[in-house]
Amino acid sequence: MNNVKTAIQPLNVEMGQQVRKYIDTLTKPPGSLGRLEELAIQLAEMTSEAFPAVSPAGVIVFAADHGVVEEGVSAFPQEVTVQMVMNFLNNGAAINVFSRQIGAMFEVVDIGVAADIEADGVVKRKIRYGTSNFCKQDAMTRQEVEKAIAVGYERAEQMIGQGSKCLILGEMGIGNTTPSSAIVAVLSGLEVGTLVGQGTGIAEEKLTHKQNVIVRALKERKPDPKDPIDILAKIGGLEIAGMTGAMLAAAANRIPIIIDGFICTISALLAKGICQTASDYMIVGHRSVEPGHGIALQLLGKKPLLDLDLRLGEGSGAAVAFPILQSATLMLKEMATFASAGISKEQRKGV
Amino acid sequence: MNNVKTAIQPLNVEMGQQVRKYIDTLTKPPGSLGRLEELAIQLAEMTSEAFPAVSPAGVIVFAADHGVVEEGVSAFPQEVTVQMVMNFLNNGAAINVFSRQIGAMFEVVDIGVAADIEADGVVKRKIRYGTSNFCKQDAMTRQEVEKAIAVGYERAEQMIGQGSKCLILGEMGIGNTTPSSAIVAVLSGLEVGTLVGQGTGIAEEKLTHKQNVIVRALKERKPDPKDPIDILAKIGGLEIAGMTGAMLAAAANRIPIIIDGFICTISALLAKGICQTASDYMIVGHRSVEPGHGIALQLLGKKPLLDLDLRLGEGSGAAVAFPILQSATLMLKEMATFASAGISKEQRKGV
Repeated sequence: MNNVKTAIQPLNVEMGQQVRKYIDTLTKPPGSLGRLEELAIQLAEMTSEAFPAVSPAGVIVFAADHGVVEEGVSAFPQEVTVQMVMNFLNNGAAINVFSRQIGAMFEVVDIGVAADIEADGVVKRKIRYGTSNFCKQDAMTRQEVEKAIAVGYERAEQMIGQGSKCLILGEMGIGNTTPSSAIVAVLSGLEVGTLVGQGTGIAEEKLTHKQNVIVRALKERKPDPKDPIDILAKIGGLEIAGMTGAMLAAAANRIPIIIDGFICTISALLAKGICQTASDYMIVGHRSVEPGHGIALQLLGKKPLLDLDLRLGEGSGAAVAFPILQSATLMLKEMATFASAGISKEQRKGV
Repeated sequence: MNNVKTAIQPLNVEMGQQVRKYIDTLTKPPGSLGRLEELAIQLAEMTSEAFPAVSPAGVIVFAADHGVVEEGVSAFPQEVTVQMVMNFLNNGAAINVFSRQIGAMFEVVDIGVAADIEADGVVKRKIRYGTSNFCKQDAMTRQEVEKAIAVGYERAEQMIGQGSKCLILGEMGIGNTTPSSAIVAVLSGLEVGTLVGQGTGIAEEKLTHKQNVIVRALKERKPDPKDPIDILAKIGGLEIAGMTGAMLAAAANRIPIIIDGFICTISALLAKGICQTASDYMIVGHRSVEPGHGIALQLLGKKPLLDLDLRLGEGSGAAVAFPILQSATLMLKEMATFASAGISKEQRKGV
């Protein structure tokens, strides 16, 4: 982890200032492209490039299972994790569709699915067959957390090595809103009741049950809010740790990260806990309807690009937001300046 | 105009219901793609197709000048309209960049620029050399309004004939926030002071002047809020009328329209005034920072897709929003169903 901290460098603020000045020479009233201008500046600060690129994006979906599902917190059986991995491999899931739309590289990593997946195409990095039920014991060991983070780090570096200019991290794991809600409760210090959503359509009774499971687990496990590895070991998930590792690798390589919904934002908070500077490389794709997401975004200190009532996960909302980043980079790279378009300086104020 | 009213057919609600049912068979929890699902249903209702397409989009930018600029309502001279038309023709403006990004067809129409434009590539449909100063006389005649609407109608039909599946209408006209603010005051019945923005960076003093000009014009011209042609003739603009005509053509051809910012929304309101059903074919791309835009959107009764602090016009915000529509159509067309992915029916509730 110490290597990571030294590998992640601060933003290039000078490059941001240079780009800000350049944007004001483009043929449009100053500031009239609002957040696209801010994004272009942020991307320049992240990448240290005057004309940053985000294409092609790289999408990595981490799949894993959760022992806590035996408490009945999820409305659907664990087998769906495997079935959805197969769907990813067959290009039929939402994230496949949106990855193709944006021309992204794509891979699925089995980092801890509770069954063997023999299919071609899946990246096999299973650390264990799902976590333990954290109501009864720690979800995993510290060593397993570190392995999962290392897997995420390795996959991200591989994706970046193949040419990805921007990373989108997704997850699949039946039951993973439960560990995510538990983690945001630990990090925020807020009551579990305010953080757990009805979003996925589980009934009122089931919701109370889910809340009780989390309250009980937190009382038993007592994760240290200051220690992300401890949090992940006691109440985390393997795919959550994997995404955390991938984000650290992206930041260490000055590659922008688009954060997806609730679970992805939890990974982002843990990456920020490991290295504060990592969050400088993150852009939040969208605001999920999951209630815990609002709190998680406040803790991350970022404003989402989209607000389209999405709550699917898989990285899908981040992929849908990607073209906005692309617009920002193309504005910078392809728009004429007042000088090149022959529009006189006196007329610049507010075209 | 009566022809238009009969040409614009109601939405195909049955097709929408069919698509809604189909969406619930896709491999994701019901409703988890939020507004993308709603968009897919709306596009099906508009196009009468079970798998609607929006690509390629067609972008038409209408350029015209405004006599009211002689009152000093704009911080920049009228010549910039011509210079920006040249910038469009040279592919250097924001709308060029975003049109290329989304693979759109593109054209610029001179519908009333105050100078001759000899350059190749511009579509020459000049109705007059800019409007008259509506503080002193009507902006144009009713006949000129009808000509401008017909030009817009013709250009949209031409673009649709060439294969455009979705229309984005843009405008360029120095000073055109003044007629737009005047029109929204007439349509809403609200005080001019609450509708006129400081958005483009004009000083407080200039802002008061702009408000006074509008108040004076409305008192002199007395446009009939119930008669869109009267409004356009007395206080309108040629590019505003052109966009109105193009929207009517799109609706008559069951082609979805992405509405851009403030000025484009004014055209949308006028099109709705001419034929109520036309607005069923409109999707609002983004919320502009111009204060009048919020009021205009309320009158239109639509919620924007993006809120990125844009205020450029040209159709730029609509083009940036386009990939979201594309995501909605690809979700429908390319995602696997539970049946095709072999995920058993019992497990469908909330993947």
